[in-house]
Amino acid sequence: MKKLIFVILAIVSNLGIAQKNELNLMPWPQEITIGNEQFIIEPNFNIGISNNSSERIKIATTKFLRRLSGRTGVFIDEGFAFTTQEILNPSLEISFQRIGNLVVNEDESYHLEVTKSTIKITAITDLGVLHALETLLQLVNNNENSYYFTAATIKDSPRFTWRGLMIDVARHFEPVDVIKRNLDAMAAVKMNVFHWHLTDDQGFRIESKTHPKLHELGSDGLYYTQEQIKDIVKYAGERGIRVIPEVDVPGHATAILTAYPEIGSKDTSYSIERFSGIFDPTLDPTNEKTYEILGDLFGEMALLFPDKYFHIGGDENEGKHWDENEHIQEFKKVNNLESNHDLQTYMNIRLADILAKHGKLVMGWEEIMTDNMPITALIHSWKGENEGIEGGSSLEKAAEKGYKTVLSDGYYIDLMQPAIDHYLVNPLPKNNNLTAEEKARILGGEATMWSELVTSLTIDSRIWPRTAAIAERLWSSEEVTDVSNMYKRLETISFRLEELGINHIRNRDVILRNITNNQNIEWLKTLTKIYEPIKIYSRNKGGTEYKTFSPFTLFADACSADASDGIIFNKLVNDFISTSNENSKKEIIAYLKKWSDNYSQFILMKKKSPILRDIEPISKNLSEIATTLLSIIDSEKLKKVDLNNSKEQLLKIKNPVVDVELIIFQDLKKLTTFLINEKK
Amino acid sequence: MKKLIFVILAIVSNLGIAQKNELNLMPWPQEITIGNEQFIIEPNFNIGISNNSSERIKIATTKFLRRLSGRTGVFIDEGFAFTTQEILNPSLEISFQRIGNLVVNEDESYHLEVTKSTIKITAITDLGVLHALETLLQLVNNNENSYYFTAATIKDSPRFTWRGLMIDVARHFEPVDVIKRNLDAMAAVKMNVFHWHLTDDQGFRIESKTHPKLHELGSDGLYYTQEQIKDIVKYAGERGIRVIPEVDVPGHATAILTAYPEIGSKDTSYSIERFSGIFDPTLDPTNEKTYEILGDLFGEMALLFPDKYFHIGGDENEGKHWDENEHIQEFKKVNNLESNHDLQTYMNIRLADILAKHGKLVMGWEEIMTDNMPITALIHSWKGENEGIEGGSSLEKAAEKGYKTVLSDGYYIDLMQPAIDHYLVNPLPKNNNLTAEEKARILGGEATMWSELVTSLTIDSRIWPRTAAIAERLWSSEEVTDVSNMYKRLETISFRLEELGINHIRNRDVILRNITNNQNIEWLKTLTKIYEPIKIYSRNKGGTEYKTFSPFTLFADACSADASDGIIFNKLVNDFISTSNENSKKEIIAYLKKWSDNYSQFILMKKKSPILRDIEPISKNLSEIATTLLSIIDSEKLKKVDLNNSKEQLLKIKNPVVDVELIIFQDLKKLTTFLINEKK
Repeated sequence: MKKLIFVILAIVSNLGIAQKNELNLMPWPQEITIGNEQFIIEPNFNIGISNNSSERIKIATTKFLRRLSGRTGVFIDEGFAFTTQEILNPSLEISFQRIGNLVVNEDESYHLEVTKSTIKITAITDLGVLHALETLLQLVNNNENSYYFTAATIKDSPRFTWRGLMIDVARHFEPVDVIKRNLDAMAAVKMNVFHWHLTDDQGFRIESKTHPKLHELGSDGLYYTQEQIKDIVKYAGERGIRVIPEVDVPGHATAILTAYPEIGSKDTSYSIERFSGIFDPTLDPTNEKTYEILGDLFGEMALLFPDKYFHIGGDENEGKHWDENEHIQEFKKVNNLESNHDLQTYMNIRLADILAKHGKLVMGWEEIMTDNMPITALIHSWKGENEGIEGGSSLEKAAEKGYKTVLSDGYYIDLMQPAIDHYLVNPLPKNNNLTAEEKARILGGEATMWSELVTSLTIDSRIWPRTAAIAERLWSSEEVTDVSNMYKRLETISFRLEELGINHIRNRDVILRNITNNQNIEWLKTLTKIYEPIKIYSRNKGGTEYKTFSPFTLFADACSADASDGIIFNKLVNDFISTSNENSKKEIIAYLKKWSDNYSQFILMKKKSPILRDIEPISKNLSEIATTLLSIIDSEKLKKVDLNNSKEQLLKIKNPVVDVELIIFQDLKKLTTFLINEKK
Repeated sequence: MKKLIFVILAIVSNLGIAQKNELNLMPWPQEITIGNEQFIIEPNFNIGISNNSSERIKIATTKFLRRLSGRTGVFIDEGFAFTTQEILNPSLEISFQRIGNLVVNEDESYHLEVTKSTIKITAITDLGVLHALETLLQLVNNNENSYYFTAATIKDSPRFTWRGLMIDVARHFEPVDVIKRNLDAMAAVKMNVFHWHLTDDQGFRIESKTHPKLHELGSDGLYYTQEQIKDIVKYAGERGIRVIPEVDVPGHATAILTAYPEIGSKDTSYSIERFSGIFDPTLDPTNEKTYEILGDLFGEMALLFPDKYFHIGGDENEGKHWDENEHIQEFKKVNNLESNHDLQTYMNIRLADILAKHGKLVMGWEEIMTDNMPITALIHSWKGENEGIEGGSSLEKAAEKGYKTVLSDGYYIDLMQPAIDHYLVNPLPKNNNLTAEEKARILGGEATMWSELVTSLTIDSRIWPRTAAIAERLWSSEEVTDVSNMYKRLETISFRLEELGINHIRNRDVILRNITNNQNIEWLKTLTKIYEPIKIYSRNKGGTEYKTFSPFTLFADACSADASDGIIFNKLVNDFISTSNENSKKEIIAYLKKWSDNYSQFILMKKKSPILRDIEPISKNLSEIATTLLSIIDSEKLKKVDLNNSKEQLLKIKNPVVDVELIIFQDLKKLTTFLINEKK
């Protein structure tokens, strides 16, 4: 009997592990126990909200029911939640103690319990409930007969209070619906700060009623009205997301100066910048009118953005126009400002004073952290180690100096790096020398979506699904670092994001249909699964290959980081080389055949569209090496011609073409070497 | 010599015809001469606007440049148009005489001339220029080396001044971006009236500042703020589109009565309707408060909607609650109102008076056309011949009586009929008995997108591309009636609509990914190409199978009218049967093989998702009949088993399952009969 019990326990426990591996939760919760039961989703599913309710919870539960019904196809009888006074024994019972405030360090914890027959969510604040509802939707699983919630007990809360996404709407404007669907996606992975980079050299995107020339002359007509801003802030708040506006000064200010050249540091006229990079136009910090205009603008914005923090940028001011301006040099002398840094600090402090009058605190990129900057400022760390700030990263430095701080170095998603590169960046690694108090000043991090090469057609594929991995880093325990498990879960999360309205998958096909002039796109889609856009600012060298209005409907725009077959093929090759696994070999051969055939399909399509002409090498070169590898595999003994071909052909696929790189290059090279040695 | 010239002319002329057939213009222009030259699209392409400019043209030319660059991948140097003072010899020169007014019978004509080296657009109003720019974008063609505009001389103007699309946002709410992208699409096919059905039993979608309970209690939180309405009206105006708001009264008013039960005809409480159909709740036309509330509301709306016309609905009032209400019966007696129709007319006239104070004219569904209704009202004809109005269609009747009128009967796109059914509906057929004056009162037509079964995920596929065929009917000469040529052009237009942001193609895949739980969708996509949603209100019988919040993420929602392989297969079968064409036979066999294989792919997927269970018959039954037909084709002589199977299997595919019908059923039946006879 004892033995039998032992066996059952073992099964349960194994089942637990198996199920745990099957769950596609992201971010992974702090504590989870998985049961063996299932709560079947049926038409009588309903929701009761006890004690309090809030507008936020009303909206979230309605949305929850729509998403649940949409995904499962279950015709749920009740389209809206009840109060627990109205309904006995609801399927899902929600209770919380108070409405959460959208501030740093607010309680976002929740407790979620799913059994065979009931689901309970309890939380301190309604913000915790929002997170619990997202977790619950991620617990939807199915067998062939039904959809169900996997039974589980979850106790969860975030590791960091600041889990942000910055979107740059200056380089390319993003319409309201793009922002809204990204807010939906952020909420789905429990992110809670939307940092809105609203101004830069390429555009000023806020309607100003006090200085309308700002948006009239600085935006090409592409800006948010104040009503739209209010609408977005409200929409974000309903999803538990704070909104931090950024007006980037004194550099990155060409658009402002296009409207008001009189507050520039050089006596010239300005026009909206069309290229990318760091430009000279800079506000004049010695001109009272600068503070007048910014003061009025900040005053308007303070009414639109309820958040305590206001981002004033402050990055990449090279001070060229300051150096060239005699009056500014004189001002520095008179005011004992030794360096341009000191002059910028002078300006920052004046801006901080203006913002303080509106009850706001300054946030700025790490350049604002100079000796005189008050410690009420929040430091946004973005440069790498040993860059800019001496003696350690600006993040630690800031915390040591007494500043609150947020990390973006390592979370630059516009670099087009794989998710792993961001996933493993820990804002607070174990081996730090910080005191508990200093550690507490590290609030979290922000993914940054700079938009030089990004339009509303492609932005979703640049943000998602990778940002979900960053969201996990900022929410989950630092022990959660299993990369292959992260990638496994990310695949499902990616589809869930599409369900929410994110266009990263569907819009790839739209671009491919355009490139092929609406012919068959399957062969081209095959290529997008192994080619990735070139990384780390190697696309658009010097910032002048692309203007803001250049076409971003090219092959590179249909590709994204973490190309799916690239990940699979890498595993197959490693497995085959280390174990000579026959199944892996078969799958490798299947891939090689598909790639080998690709060029014949290209030829069929070639005449359909002139855009395809440029793409020819990526199909042709891949086909060639794949054909050669198949020939080597087929041969008893290595043929000289295959050996020579393989060498030549590897060279051909090594370098990027049309702004993409073959992400399986190293795998093909390894495989070639292995096969050559094998068949020698 | 003479002969030689003759030959050359013949070639030119043939080429002309060939090219004409290759052009995918829609709506087809009134006059077109096609040249043999091409204007190659290169980076130096630019635009000059002479004499006047307008905000509308500035926006349209910028958008034109983006679309041209996006489609062709050409890095056009200049992102914005110039004035002709600023630039010598622009590639495209635009001139017009005055800014067009958004009113009935405004001049929308244009002249477009494309040669090898220059393009010229001239028009009376800037509205004509907008149309010319859309035509020009449709003239973009390509060979394998470059994109070019086909040389042509076009003189064009609309046949009807009212070319509308109605969107019902009451049954299912549509966010601002859905409306905007549909306005873009309307403009692309030269439609110029957006009729916004804003209220119904299922929702009141306008923010009311005078009576906020209307949107607070009548909308589930899903309504347009006044700022959003202004934004949409502005957006439409920039595209030359008038916006007609509709507040549907006295029937279809449950949402209004949910907020203000005191103006209902029955002493009861009301709640927002969740089903579809015709319901009893009706405003009380004898209650002064009814006019007070509507008067205030119309006053607010008059400020938001600049158009002269205001749609007051007026349809499907069955007067049940009027009959049951003693006070109302008494009122009728006192005021000599014999019928409920008379009572409604009494109300309509009072509403017309209110609207007249705001400078508006009444538009209403044809039921408002009663004897006492002033002829300033615009009659919206929607019932079929002999329905409702005796002695001919309400359209002609209205014109005869002196009303201006617009046709929607025949343009009900929610019926899910093929484009041809709408395309051949001529608002003013040749064989009419109307005088010239009466004819002039027939202003045009409107496609109506009723949204009982439509969400923002699927609405685009319900409107487009079929509505482009209606747009052509309303713009082009009545002689343009070649259906197969229309379908050929529609295929390209469909892709162009996707380029503009319409989601009809991409969202089908999203639904299929959801249904399959994100597995391979190709086999399921194959089925969407021959299955269509059941038509003419046979889905959702009685209006109670679906609630407004039921899932519309089912297989039927991924299907649409005019299933693409259905059209092709129909041609193949007809061709094969009439000519025994071997190529057609080959293609038929290829289709049959694909369908025959479908079920084995279904089996592989079956366990992945419970939603698939319901779909099984559509894959299985199709596979069976396809397999049998292949066997018959393969056999020298008909086998008895095949004969018997085919009979049984045809029966199985005859009737709709899961709200879809096999659109090739008749073709398969015909093919079976033919093959059986052949092999007997």
